[in-house]
Amino acid sequence: MRNIRIKLEYDGTEYHGWQKQPHDVTIQEKIEEAVFKVTGEKVEVIGCSRTDSGVHAKEYIANFHVGDRVPVFKFRGALNYMLPNDIVVLEAEEVDEDFHARYDSKGKTYSYTILNRYMPSAIERNLVYHVKYKLDVDKMKEACKYFIGKHDFAAFKTQGASVKTSVRTVSELRIETYGEHIKFYISADGFLYNMVRIIAGTLVMVGSGKIEPQQVKEIIDSKDRRRAGHCAPACGLCLEKVFY
Amino acid sequence: MRNIRIKLEYDGTEYHGWQKQPHDVTIQEKIEEAVFKVTGEKVEVIGCSRTDSGVHAKEYIANFHVGDRVPVFKFRGALNYMLPNDIVVLEAEEVDEDFHARYDSKGKTYSYTILNRYMPSAIERNLVYHVKYKLDVDKMKEACKYFIGKHDFAAFKTQGASVKTSVRTVSELRIETYGEHIKFYISADGFLYNMVRIIAGTLVMVGSGKIEPQQVKEIIDSKDRRRAGHCAPACGLCLEKVFY
Repeated sequence: MRNIRIKLEYDGTEYHGWQKQPHDVTIQEKIEEAVFKVTGEKVEVIGCSRTDSGVHAKEYIANFHVGDRVPVFKFRGALNYMLPNDIVVLEAEEVDEDFHARYDSKGKTYSYTILNRYMPSAIERNLVYHVKYKLDVDKMKEACKYFIGKHDFAAFKTQGASVKTSVRTVSELRIETYGEHIKFYISADGFLYNMVRIIAGTLVMVGSGKIEPQQVKEIIDSKDRRRAGHCAPACGLCLEKVFY
Repeated sequence: MRNIRIKLEYDGTEYHGWQKQPHDVTIQEKIEEAVFKVTGEKVEVIGCSRTDSGVHAKEYIANFHVGDRVPVFKFRGALNYMLPNDIVVLEAEEVDEDFHARYDSKGKTYSYTILNRYMPSAIERNLVYHVKYKLDVDKMKEACKYFIGKHDFAAFKTQGASVKTSVRTVSELRIETYGEHIKFYISADGFLYNMVRIIAGTLVMVGSGKIEPQQVKEIIDSKDRRRAGHCAPACGLCLEKVFY
């Protein structure tokens, strides 16, 4: 058996997230179907992360174990031939047999994009979070520094997934602006369920003047989900990179 | 009767262009349906341009004449309520009764976006022209200058629409790059059928070394459609602005 590692880009709009589900179409299911069509083998494709419904990815990493029938250099082209246009295999290579896309991940970078203007966008409707009232970007930038470092992010986690600890280390959180867009990049050793989207919701609270930047520290310290902002929409979120 | 001018943004992916057609769904038809639902009146919505199937617009201008039943300030919200999410009315206002979105247009700016990398993009699949071989942007920039000015653009026109003259004045053609993208903006007093897309195809010929930048002058002078580049895909094209 060979262990094949693939790098994917996908537009998550039409999918119920990564992970297979009984009644909904997911990315994992589409990849497994494509692998079956190419190799004739039913494999489990291991993903680096369970992205939610509507979340996008520019460089998602996954792996699966298959026999020798198809040469490795043919995987990328063959899988893309089988996949719909909103999922693209960017790379496919053979890796060590013990490589595991989820367990071996040392960290990830996500981006979150806000369109800050009065009217929504037709063209970018599935790629941005539309916030119609004017946000104060300077205050949002000031708030970023409180997230950076090793913290218990219990206040920034939706209940549901059981994890041993809610302590995570955020190594980077920076905001860029272009045109009417406010986009932030966040890197951490791991992310709790909905963590980036709740941080986005909290930054929007700061930008709209509902709370002051320094209150972010109190919210983190409180470990109280009710004090943080709302869970911002999935469509603004994009997995940018996974580190191994 | 009042003359209402609207500014639209739309994602053209799902439409067979602007102009109404017997068997296909178009933007004009969608707007006329929305106006009917809001006002109860069957109007003809006059568009600034007949954009092709798959072409997008950030600021498309249209107008229509209706009675007094609905206050002008309610049009934007009411039309957006009736329209699908891939068409957004950005503005609606009452204008002089003789304003005509097409005849009064003094010029337009279009953008054309190329994604220049080996693999196609899942996320931007409907918004860019994917060119997999490396393009020489400096040569493309050099070629731009030959298009600027008043020329007979007969070589850059698809047969079909009958126009009195193929002389147009291009006031601006500039190229920007960001990440793996090459994007150009072109402004002119008017455009021939497929003119921007054939210019895009010609610039790609220059960027790939098939012709030298200075040959663009000969191609323009030849007025021979066969000498210019291919008609690049509609999805890379976006109407950016209309001047009155």
